[in-house]
Amino acid sequence: MERRLARRMAHMTASEIREILKLTRKPGVISFAGGLPAPEFFPVDRMKAVAVRILEEGGCDALQYSPTEGDFSLRKKIAGRMKMKFGATVGADEVLITSGSQQGLDLSGKMFLDEGDKILCESPTYLGAIQALRAYGPRFIEVPTDGEGMIVSELEKRLSTGGRIKMIYVNPDFQNPSGRTWSLERRREFMEIVTRHEIPVVEDNPYGELCFEGAPMPSIKSLDPAGLVIFLGTFSKILCPGLRIGWLAATPALVEKYVLVKQGADLHTSTFGQRQVAAYMEMYDLEEDIRRIREAYRKRRDAMARAMEREFPADIHFTRPSGGLFVWVELPEGLDARELLRKCLDRDVAFVPGGSFFPNGGRENTIRFNYSNMPEERIAEGIRRVAEVLRAMPGRETSISVFAGDGGG
Amino acid sequence: MERRLARRMAHMTASEIREILKLTRKPGVISFAGGLPAPEFFPVDRMKAVAVRILEEGGCDALQYSPTEGDFSLRKKIAGRMKMKFGATVGADEVLITSGSQQGLDLSGKMFLDEGDKILCESPTYLGAIQALRAYGPRFIEVPTDGEGMIVSELEKRLSTGGRIKMIYVNPDFQNPSGRTWSLERRREFMEIVTRHEIPVVEDNPYGELCFEGAPMPSIKSLDPAGLVIFLGTFSKILCPGLRIGWLAATPALVEKYVLVKQGADLHTSTFGQRQVAAYMEMYDLEEDIRRIREAYRKRRDAMARAMEREFPADIHFTRPSGGLFVWVELPEGLDARELLRKCLDRDVAFVPGGSFFPNGGRENTIRFNYSNMPEERIAEGIRRVAEVLRAMPGRETSISVFAGDGGG
Repeated sequence: MERRLARRMAHMTASEIREILKLTRKPGVISFAGGLPAPEFFPVDRMKAVAVRILEEGGCDALQYSPTEGDFSLRKKIAGRMKMKFGATVGADEVLITSGSQQGLDLSGKMFLDEGDKILCESPTYLGAIQALRAYGPRFIEVPTDGEGMIVSELEKRLSTGGRIKMIYVNPDFQNPSGRTWSLERRREFMEIVTRHEIPVVEDNPYGELCFEGAPMPSIKSLDPAGLVIFLGTFSKILCPGLRIGWLAATPALVEKYVLVKQGADLHTSTFGQRQVAAYMEMYDLEEDIRRIREAYRKRRDAMARAMEREFPADIHFTRPSGGLFVWVELPEGLDARELLRKCLDRDVAFVPGGSFFPNGGRENTIRFNYSNMPEERIAEGIRRVAEVLRAMPGRETSISVFAGDGGG
Repeated sequence: MERRLARRMAHMTASEIREILKLTRKPGVISFAGGLPAPEFFPVDRMKAVAVRILEEGGCDALQYSPTEGDFSLRKKIAGRMKMKFGATVGADEVLITSGSQQGLDLSGKMFLDEGDKILCESPTYLGAIQALRAYGPRFIEVPTDGEGMIVSELEKRLSTGGRIKMIYVNPDFQNPSGRTWSLERRREFMEIVTRHEIPVVEDNPYGELCFEGAPMPSIKSLDPAGLVIFLGTFSKILCPGLRIGWLAATPALVEKYVLVKQGADLHTSTFGQRQVAAYMEMYDLEEDIRRIREAYRKRRDAMARAMEREFPADIHFTRPSGGLFVWVELPEGLDARELLRKCLDRDVAFVPGGSFFPNGGRENTIRFNYSNMPEERIAEGIRRVAEVLRAMPGRETSISVFAGDGGG
């Protein structure tokens, strides 16, 4: 059987996160490993009323096949939110419903990539995008990032070398894994460059609405007169992920092509699931829900930042995200995050070593911490344990005595 | 933008069925075009109780992310039904939940096909499979079929020529589009040959449980000691299609690989949708529902067969399916089904010209008729109109006078 498999299967290996998550299922583990939203905010009771309503109003239609593009009323609502939340003017015909935004990644790979084509992406970048896109056999070209986002001079350099560059994949708001957000200036410079080079951009934006302080940034899609940006959105982080309802916004011509691709992939997204989301927005105040989620996550972010400041030695760097779900940690060169994880798992704490977020490997001294799925006191306790294990790592004994007292971060 | 698209996009064109279906939306049209199950059998009221129960019992978990493999309780139930309904002994770990069986086709393409590889399939074959698999750039090799299924000597011939034959795709029970079912002997001969050649087989079986008369045939999967068969199943035709819940059954080693592929494609199928199906089976008697659907479709099949016998000239051949949703019609050579459709649409009757079901084209004198979605008296009226249009087609005037009276089919 092996010799019948497609070449791509040689590169498909179990996700490290998945394997770590299995270990975190035992009760009592403090897990910073997943990217799970806090389930206490899922509207469980309201969802009963929602289900009853869509079955009473829709009847059989709620359970029948439906158009590949998605439920028109949901697409219209999303078009409205694209303006209100992301500053992007799109019509309902520029929205395609997807089975989670993960599907938007897969469909984009199918749309743009032939084997050997190049994708540019941030370094680090979202692991799920690497997995989805790798199935189409591309070469990933990583573009260095700093606290303001993708470094545009580095982008320009890579675009000028040419080759079959087919797509740029970015995650400019509260990035997974780094928690970083691109500055407005960087967004403008980026769009100026990609417009000049006419390269399609996939803007993955699952966290943009979870902004803790300051005004949310305009999406890259809102700065795109040439129609190059494909925006991926999702209800997973603002309502609940179990329904797998996401969307994609692009020019009508591109949406038409995406519809063809999606039709082959799964015909259409669950009729019932789409109606659940649309009815929820009609019956309840989703924006109020989002405010509550934002407030809770902000407190958790604070708890994690405070604990890291208090507990971590000064030579350990971490981001202070102003939204989203993740903190990114850089250990001193030579410290191995996988080794640290093994020791931390013995203390019932888990996180994701950052190496997997670099499509071409390396940077084994980085870590992604998630704070959305743990209460504040558990966050403090977990970080305390990580710091203890860190201090006991071979070669670290000296630096503790130097840095232990200064509380820097 | 066009020059950035993947090569595969050149072959992705709007499905003819989709375009025809748009025309059939106007009220009053008698449509034999879609493949829709009869919505009057969807358990609309029961689905309210189901939703309430899964939210009360599952709480937040019913709305959270869940494993890529699928809900374990649903996988166990499906494993049980694989034995009971399809004669195949599989464990829960040999079942992967998919977002409809259409996704099983897409994942199979990704699993096995590199650009230029060969797929063998029946001639004609399911259009949705052609669309899903074509995205991976294969060459389709059609194997002729007769009333007993794929002609195995023709299969053997094509296998012996070699080349990168990576997969065989078949639909042995009440095939879409032909309505034909493979004989037991043909199934055994087929499995003997593919086992000798060690070729993976995708057995697409959405209609197997809708058997009107005689004992259902054992699935090909049940005749597969070597673990070559990937079985695709769905709840779309026995419960309802709008939840998009299907499954795939294969060896544990293959399921593990499919899990990796699915993870990149959409992370997992709707948690809520999976629990809806599992809870439905716990709370109600799905087998009794299936008996009612079968009975209704049998009557509709009868209505269509009777009308075709009565109305169609003797030189028009049609199948008499013993289950499923479709009748296949062959017009005399030289008659163009697309031309007939255009004229029938003027009379408010629709069907799908059969040419699209041949991946390499040709056979424009064939038609697929669906009978599951129209009441019996509308079926009779629709076939009457088609026959009228047929008789008035250029060059047909003579044959009417010859055949009109003999009622043959």
